[in-house]
Amino acid sequence: MADSKPVLYSYWRSSCSWRVRIALALKKVEYEYKAVHLVKDGGEQHKEGYKTINPMGQVPAFEFDGKNFTQSMAIMELLEEYYQNCCKILPSDPFERAKVREICEVINSGTQPIQNLSVMKKHSSDQAERNEWSRFWIEKGLRGVEAKLEKHSGKYCVGDTITMADCCLIPQVYNANRFAVSMEHFHNINRIVACLEKHEAFIAAHPDSQPDAQ
Amino acid sequence: MADSKPVLYSYWRSSCSWRVRIALALKKVEYEYKAVHLVKDGGEQHKEGYKTINPMGQVPAFEFDGKNFTQSMAIMELLEEYYQNCCKILPSDPFERAKVREICEVINSGTQPIQNLSVMKKHSSDQAERNEWSRFWIEKGLRGVEAKLEKHSGKYCVGDTITMADCCLIPQVYNANRFAVSMEHFHNINRIVACLEKHEAFIAAHPDSQPDAQ
Repeated sequence: MADSKPVLYSYWRSSCSWRVRIALALKKVEYEYKAVHLVKDGGEQHKEGYKTINPMGQVPAFEFDGKNFTQSMAIMELLEEYYQNCCKILPSDPFERAKVREICEVINSGTQPIQNLSVMKKHSSDQAERNEWSRFWIEKGLRGVEAKLEKHSGKYCVGDTITMADCCLIPQVYNANRFAVSMEHFHNINRIVACLEKHEAFIAAHPDSQPDAQ
Repeated sequence: MADSKPVLYSYWRSSCSWRVRIALALKKVEYEYKAVHLVKDGGEQHKEGYKTINPMGQVPAFEFDGKNFTQSMAIMELLEEYYQNCCKILPSDPFERAKVREICEVINSGTQPIQNLSVMKKHSSDQAERNEWSRFWIEKGLRGVEAKLEKHSGKYCVGDTITMADCCLIPQVYNANRFAVSMEHFHNINRIVACLEKHEAFIAAHPDSQPDAQ
C-alpha cells in the first residue's frame, strides 16, 4: 500500500476527473482532493506548477505512492489493478472486459475529447456555434453507446454489476444535459442513469458534492 | 482458442486500425483482413452491412470467436489478455502499465479523435483551415507525448520493450507527417520511431503493406 494518502487533482465539473472520483468512491479509497480551477485566470491547469504534474495541462492527475498519473482511463485501470479486492470495476471474463472498455472508449475517445471546452473554443468564437458543435458530437457518441447498451446492458452498462463503463457514462450524460441534447430516444442510457444516480458512490462523486463546486 | 481465424475490419490509412495491426503482428496472430473503404462512395463504414458490425461506423472492428469488438484500445487490451503468452505489450508492473496506457491515451483520446477526418470536415469546408486544425491538435498531442517520453522512455516509449504505447505512436507520427507538423523538437519521438520502423511487425502493419493500399 502507498505510504501517504493519494491526491486527486480535479475540477468539479471536469468529466474525466469525475470518472476517477466515481471509481475511487466505488473502491472506497481515501484521497486528498486538490482543486485545479479550469477557468479562473485563464485556467490554473496552464500554470507552471501544475504543468510539472501534467504537461498536457489537463485534469485529472493522480498522485500515488510518490508518482503522478494522468489520463482517466489509465488511472481507473491502475486503481482496478492496485485495489484488486475492493469492488471490481471490470468483469473477470476477457470478452466482457472488452465490452466494458468499448463503451468507455466510445465516450473517452469518441465523444468527450471532441466536445470539450478547449476544442469547442478552438472551433468557433461564437457561442451558438460552439453549442451546436458539442451537441452534435455528444448526440453521435450517445447513439453509439445506446447501440452497445441495447446488446450488452443489464441493470448497468455491461451486465448487472457497475463497471468503468458506468463511471464514464454518468459525466457524459451530464454534459449532454448541459448542451440540451435530446435524450428521449436513449432508453437504455436513461434507465441505467436513473439507477446509478441513486448509488452512494455516484452521489459522492457528483460535481455538486465537490469542495470546489460553484 | 477461437475456432475460426479472427477478422480485422480495417482501412489501410486508418490509424486506429493500424494500431491493432501492429499488436496482431507483434503477437503473430493470423487473421483475415477485410478492407472497409472510408472514402469511396461516401464511405463503406456508413453502409448498413458494416453498421451491424460497428454502429459507430468506424474502423477497426475485430471479429473474434463469433463476437465483434470495436475501439482500438479495447481490442489491444483483449489481445493482450487472450494471447497472454505471445509477446506482452503491457509491462507486468501496474505503475509501468499505467505509464503505457497514459501515452496511449494522450494519443487515443487526446489527439487522434480531434484531428481525424470526420471532425476536421465538420470543423470547416476549407482545406487550409482543415489542415491548420489537424496540425494544431497533432502538435499539441505530440508535445504531451514527448514530455512523457522525456521521463519514461528507454529504447521504446516505456522502457526497453515494445508496448501498446509504441503501437499508438507510429500511426500518430505518420499523421503528423501528412499534415506537415514540424518534428524537429521531438527528439525522443524521432529516436523511438526510427527504431520501431525497422521492426518486422511494424513493417508488416504499415499502411503501404495492406491489401487495400493505394
